[in-house]
Amino acid sequence: MSKRYTACILIIGNEVLSGRTQDANLGFLATSLNDLGIQVSEARVIRDDRQIIADAVNETRRRDDYVLTTGGIGPTHDDITSESIALAFGLPYVRNAEAEAILRAYYKPEDITEERLSMADMPEGAVLIDNPVSRAPGFQIENVFVLPGVPRIMRDMFQGMAHRLTGGTPMLSRSITAELPEGELAAPLGVLQNRFPDVEMGSYPFFQGGTLGANLVLRSFDAALLAEAAVAVAAMVRDLGGEPTDAEQDQGVLS
Amino acid sequence: MSKRYTACILIIGNEVLSGRTQDANLGFLATSLNDLGIQVSEARVIRDDRQIIADAVNETRRRDDYVLTTGGIGPTHDDITSESIALAFGLPYVRNAEAEAILRAYYKPEDITEERLSMADMPEGAVLIDNPVSRAPGFQIENVFVLPGVPRIMRDMFQGMAHRLTGGTPMLSRSITAELPEGELAAPLGVLQNRFPDVEMGSYPFFQGGTLGANLVLRSFDAALLAEAAVAVAAMVRDLGGEPTDAEQDQGVLS
Repeated sequence: MSKRYTACILIIGNEVLSGRTQDANLGFLATSLNDLGIQVSEARVIRDDRQIIADAVNETRRRDDYVLTTGGIGPTHDDITSESIALAFGLPYVRNAEAEAILRAYYKPEDITEERLSMADMPEGAVLIDNPVSRAPGFQIENVFVLPGVPRIMRDMFQGMAHRLTGGTPMLSRSITAELPEGELAAPLGVLQNRFPDVEMGSYPFFQGGTLGANLVLRSFDAALLAEAAVAVAAMVRDLGGEPTDAEQDQGVLS
Repeated sequence: MSKRYTACILIIGNEVLSGRTQDANLGFLATSLNDLGIQVSEARVIRDDRQIIADAVNETRRRDDYVLTTGGIGPTHDDITSESIALAFGLPYVRNAEAEAILRAYYKPEDITEERLSMADMPEGAVLIDNPVSRAPGFQIENVFVLPGVPRIMRDMFQGMAHRLTGGTPMLSRSITAELPEGELAAPLGVLQNRFPDVEMGSYPFFQGGTLGANLVLRSFDAALLAEAAVAVAAMVRDLGGEPTDAEQDQGVLS
């Protein structure tokens, strides 16, 4: 079996924790990383606090192959991610010459302020992550990748740095929706889980229009095994009097 | 100063980490807890893994006043939250008589299966959390509250248990939107942050239709101070040539 790769995502920002802003980055990052063969082991939303950020980075960078952070790298006083990363690694927090040059080339001379230049302050040795949208770069230190919180900018920057990530076999998945209560699915699904130990079977209930149902999600690194398990789960749903629907439009019908 | 209360939210489920499902519970819980005078210190999305769940519960229940978990308490084989909580507390994992009675009263005798009854298995001494929608209860052990993942059901259950939570003074907030780049706001906003140390000022950039802007969010436990700071921030935006808009429709215009 090839090596499995994992990543942790640290979403930095009081705004998400206050409930005022819905995070819009986890879904994109998790899907993109999975496509690269990297499973997200955990996502953590943490406060704008230097020690909390540093502790979370140190805990997760030793455990996971990659850590990606979002948020807190702008020019305002509450943007403290970069110095917190320096704190985590015990590295000097210095002005990065390449980043400064990028900012000086982008802004008109009269618009260059100390606050804008502060976006070039990074841990010593940082490797830049290009920002094709608003220029201020992110950076990488060892296995930690520091990205902004604005989804549109974060996504473009992630695409530009994705080649730096080494992954394994991507986890494949199939999703089968059953308009049956989980209580009816539970026993036969458990039997199938035992029959297919290398296919992870998850049941995610929903409640819509007064109907209880479940999305049955099958995941495996083995495409043939996954297809076989999907057929078996679909047959199980039919046996229970349900009509299985395949949520993966691009993966053909269940037959 | 009155005691500050904090909570950690543990979102349990591989589905959210795969990126397939967007969490829909954090926003509701964070807003509701804040209304009760409880700040969310962290939210963590973790895998369906007994030891990971138990470790996260033990780390956070000792640090925060409350821990709320969502997900993993249904009848299927992947619902392992309840036994993981028992593991965390070192408590026997037993069938709760009251929960069993609720389930037996709800289902027709022919629909009662071992899998459905397994939803009554809980750590010994669990105090039930009523489920007015689909009956299967959640539970409380000390300062840990165990809720389901289905948003509609979770919300009703939270409302029913909210009286068990003791909070302090709610954090008040004002949000001012400025269609100005953060780089222009940064210096004067930093000056205002220093002038109002008891008002937390956050700047959350956005990028819409090619325009960079920022939501400036002010938070304080002191209503008068917050109002004074909001007036000052709005004046700052006007001084920079912007037009401040108040995102809080119910809090009147900025003047």
